[in-house]
Amino acid sequence: MCRWLAYSGSPILLDELLFKPAHSLIDQSRHSTLGVETTNGDGFGVGWYATPASPGVFRGIGPAWNDRNLVNLASTVTAPIFLAHIRASTGTPVQETNCHPFRFQNWLWMHNGSIAEFARLKRDLVLGVDPGLYPAIEGSTDSEVMFFLALTFGLRDDPPGAVERAVGFIEAVAAQHGVDHSVQMTVATSDGTRLWAFRYSTVRQSRSLFYSTDVRALRELHPENAQLLQVSDEARLIVSEPLGQMAGAWNAVPESAYGVIQEGQDLIAGFHPQRP
Amino acid sequence: MCRWLAYSGSPILLDELLFKPAHSLIDQSRHSTLGVETTNGDGFGVGWYATPASPGVFRGIGPAWNDRNLVNLASTVTAPIFLAHIRASTGTPVQETNCHPFRFQNWLWMHNGSIAEFARLKRDLVLGVDPGLYPAIEGSTDSEVMFFLALTFGLRDDPPGAVERAVGFIEAVAAQHGVDHSVQMTVATSDGTRLWAFRYSTVRQSRSLFYSTDVRALRELHPENAQLLQVSDEARLIVSEPLGQMAGAWNAVPESAYGVIQEGQDLIAGFHPQRP
Amino acid sequence: MCRWLAYSGSPILLDELLFKPAHSLIDQSRHSTLGVETTNGDGFGVGWYATPASPGVFRGIGPAWNDRNLVNLASTVTAPIFLAHIRASTGTPVQETNCHPFRFQNWLWMHNGSIAEFARLKRDLVLGVDPGLYPAIEGSTDSEVMFFLALTFGLRDDPPGAVERAVGFIEAVAAQHGVDHSVQMTVATSDGTRLWAFRYSTVRQSRSLFYSTDVRALRELHPENAQLLQVSDEARLIVSEPLGQMAGAWNAVPESAYGVIQEGQDLIAGFHPQRP
Amino acid sequence: MCRWLAYSGSPILLDELLFKPAHSLIDQSRHSTLGVETTNGDGFGVGWYATPASPGVFRGIGPAWNDRNLVNLASTVTAPIFLAHIRASTGTPVQETNCHPFRFQNWLWMHNGSIAEFARLKRDLVLGVDPGLYPAIEGSTDSEVMFFLALTFGLRDDPPGAVERAVGFIEAVAAQHGVDHSVQMTVATSDGTRLWAFRYSTVRQSRSLFYSTDVRALRELHPENAQLLQVSDEARLIVSEPLGQMAGAWNAVPESAYGVIQEGQDLIAGFHPQRP
Repeated sequence: MCRWLAYSGSPILLDELLFKPAHSLIDQSRHSTLGVETTNGDGFGVGWYATPASPGVFRGIGPAWNDRNLVNLASTVTAPIFLAHIRASTGTPVQETNCHPFRFQNWLWMHNGSIAEFARLKRDLVLGVDPGLYPAIEGSTDSEVMFFLALTFGLRDDPPGAVERAVGFIEAVAAQHGVDHSVQMTVATSDGTRLWAFRYSTVRQSRSLFYSTDVRALRELHPENAQLLQVSDEARLIVSEPLGQMAGAWNAVPESAYGVIQEGQDLIAGFHPQRP
Repeated sequence: MCRWLAYSGSPILLDELLFKPAHSLIDQSRHSTLGVETTNGDGFGVGWYATPASPGVFRGIGPAWNDRNLVNLASTVTAPIFLAHIRASTGTPVQETNCHPFRFQNWLWMHNGSIAEFARLKRDLVLGVDPGLYPAIEGSTDSEVMFFLALTFGLRDDPPGAVERAVGFIEAVAAQHGVDHSVQMTVATSDGTRLWAFRYSTVRQSRSLFYSTDVRALRELHPENAQLLQVSDEARLIVSEPLGQMAGAWNAVPESAYGVIQEGQDLIAGFHPQRP
Repeated sequence: MCRWLAYSGSPILLDELLFKPAHSLIDQSRHSTLGVETTNGDGFGVGWYATPASPGVFRGIGPAWNDRNLVNLASTVTAPIFLAHIRASTGTPVQETNCHPFRFQNWLWMHNGSIAEFARLKRDLVLGVDPGLYPAIEGSTDSEVMFFLALTFGLRDDPPGAVERAVGFIEAVAAQHGVDHSVQMTVATSDGTRLWAFRYSTVRQSRSLFYSTDVRALRELHPENAQLLQVSDEARLIVSEPLGQMAGAWNAVPESAYGVIQEGQDLIAGFHPQRP
Repeated sequence: MCRWLAYSGSPILLDELLFKPAHSLIDQSRHSTLGVETTNGDGFGVGWYATPASPGVFRGIGPAWNDRNLVNLASTVTAPIFLAHIRASTGTPVQETNCHPFRFQNWLWMHNGSIAEFARLKRDLVLGVDPGLYPAIEGSTDSEVMFFLALTFGLRDDPPGAVERAVGFIEAVAAQHGVDHSVQMTVATSDGTRLWAFRYSTVRQSRSLFYSTDVRALRELHPENAQLLQVSDEARLIVSEPLGQMAGAWNAVPESAYGVIQEGQDLIAGFHPQRP
């Protein structure tokens, strides 16, 4: 299992969210409190949008907590949307091509969870990937296969629908192999303009996921907090585990739901896998 | 393209062959003279048989020439059969799962060369791998797919025949995609008891491959050479590029041929891909 | 803080002690129960004696728990004496030259603990190292400086006395800088024939250290245990945290003490730093 | 020996200079034509100024040519001043703390060359470093010691004078040890506002160093070149080996000289080591 964080809002120095908060993502890499594993030291990654069309990605195979390049990068890179991930492998090798976020064109994707008995299902799942996309698969994780299935089922046109169809496909293949409770996931994905987050599991006991309260409401709750005055109205965080300790700052994403962070009104809706 | 070395004979300290000879494999990692690339710095690996059933493998993603663990290992590990490889990537990522030798059960496999337009052919090639073996593929190289095709076509029972069928299958898939000259290879493989080496390319202009002259003959040629007295009669090396500078020590493996190093008489024979 | 294990006895496959036991050292890398940190993921190392004069060392900068080379090595390398270490950095960079065990000639050295305010004391400590040994310092840790001070003060002739003088020197330098409680250490060192272990701290509250009960006594305690029949009478383990769950198997090394594992009678004695 | 590149001018995407030019720095990492070694694969680094006070640094221990993070970073990071370096170790370990550029506060420093018999001289050289700066030395190279000597001798106030005094000190220490021809160097250093480059060797046969022709002059020479219209008048490159193939674009830095790239008139002057 893993931990991740996704941000959308006014451009922010990565450091402000990756390292500075109490119980930051980097702190979670050694001391996760809500994860299946307390240690998430099997690689990490951060993806950010310098422009909507051109995401940068930096991934490493060591633990995030001792990576000096990550510290340096986080203190100089500013972005309006970024995704960060710390990995606890469920068996696949620790290598950069297995670190999240994964990138395809302008899309980034990261995942916490697993596909049950992935080794046994993998061949049939990979066969479901568009042959034109297949050569772009670089690593060996269930998470990346899920990304390419989502791309195959239309991620670039209809993200929520595509993920519903991809998950439905995975559940159908799993059922053929007699595997129950096949999908466990929280997912974040972005095209550089909007940010989608998903919380779902076949067994309906999904990993934790939280989104930050509207900044305007937080300012009313905490009028004395100077930091909140610097954050844009539109700023929103989605995280596996809450950062910091501000009362009222975090809300659980409902079971079987997805959210969209976008210009204008954000959105939460139900998530319903669609079998082929 | 890559460079490799395979040894079979009386147990020898890896160091004696990896580092000590003039123009050693480690030297070739920086200054290959017969390779397509002068630099082979995209990872390396060594596999050795502590017992025939239990090969050890040590692989790294940096260049062999500056790896201190390799120096240490080579100066303490002794083995009767070992394979060593330095990699120059033809495009796939530099990660341990893409470093040679690959291992499956007691089998080791390493390769110099490539499958032409592998990204385009990969899906169809991987579909040819036995579904029961498929989950054991860990990396993303053409070399490892070739290994698993050989396993699929019977490597464990009939190595030369299995490689002939695997190469025939690759050439057939390539032909379906309009790809000519699909296979370029020198390959070494071992089960811990015997050692096979292959030299072949569809275009019949294969990468260089050499085998060492029978030690007894070498001793007659160089009666003054004390080192030759210490080497067992059975010792044999197969290499991409000759080591050292001893006259008469090296013989080119013929075009489209394979050899077997084994107890008793060694063997060279023609290699003829068999289309499915 | 770190965790370590040292073995002396009949030649044993590293795997038997590194991976197989319940709460093995590799398990401790993620879930230490007695350490200051639960996670020891800042590199690791293993040193073993192929012969007394020629120790092999394999060190890595990632966590031990996901290192595949370590698994492979441990399942093929057999040795009569070996030292293994998992690191939790106290600030110095994660790089191979900072991983334990350190080697100088036939000597290996590993350490759990720290020198207080090392950055401030380092220059004066390093000045205490024999100028002829100084160029052999490769990394930047307090542990390696302690090793070279011990070498300077006679480790090769009188290990206990040399470590007492080295620790006395460190405490004296620290006192000059107004640093109290300067030394915290458990140390293992070997010349390939004998194995010494030290437990000491200036404040007399030293990190945990345990040695295994005499195998003959254990066999009487657990006559039903088949594994104990395979272990030689002389076999002895020293560990930061007990492995396994066998009653009566482990004994705490006393505060301010050192032990020697050697042919014939082992020995425990008091440790008394000697100021210059 | 190593290769490096330093840029000062209008903010530019790192990619434009690191990867795109013919015979780019990344190409030189495999095929240097003017260096002592053709291969520079022992780590790399890039430092850039997001603001003059806050340089970012990204360093890696593998070869630059196969590092995917470097490709990603170079395609998203824009800076008005940056330094890039590819390393060929002269013996010290390959680790991030030995990769250039080195950073101290807002200063970056990189070096091609060596201090002769550095292992023998190191202790006396390090003793010359200001004890207050000493703890900030992280690695084990001659290049970093040279940087800290320059800082000790006033780099932050008078860069050319400080480097002259540092080199004079090194030559004096070397002379005491009977080492001739002790310094071989091309160096680049910046404070985020100006960029200094040095070419010197005790033997007066210094490694190659080139600076780019004034952009306005180049535009007159090549009026048809559209790319030159996009570069700012102030842009200037200093490189170990010329990039690209534009006639008139490169000028050798004279023997025993240094240059300053700054707002207003750039400057070249003689370099004269000052013994203590």
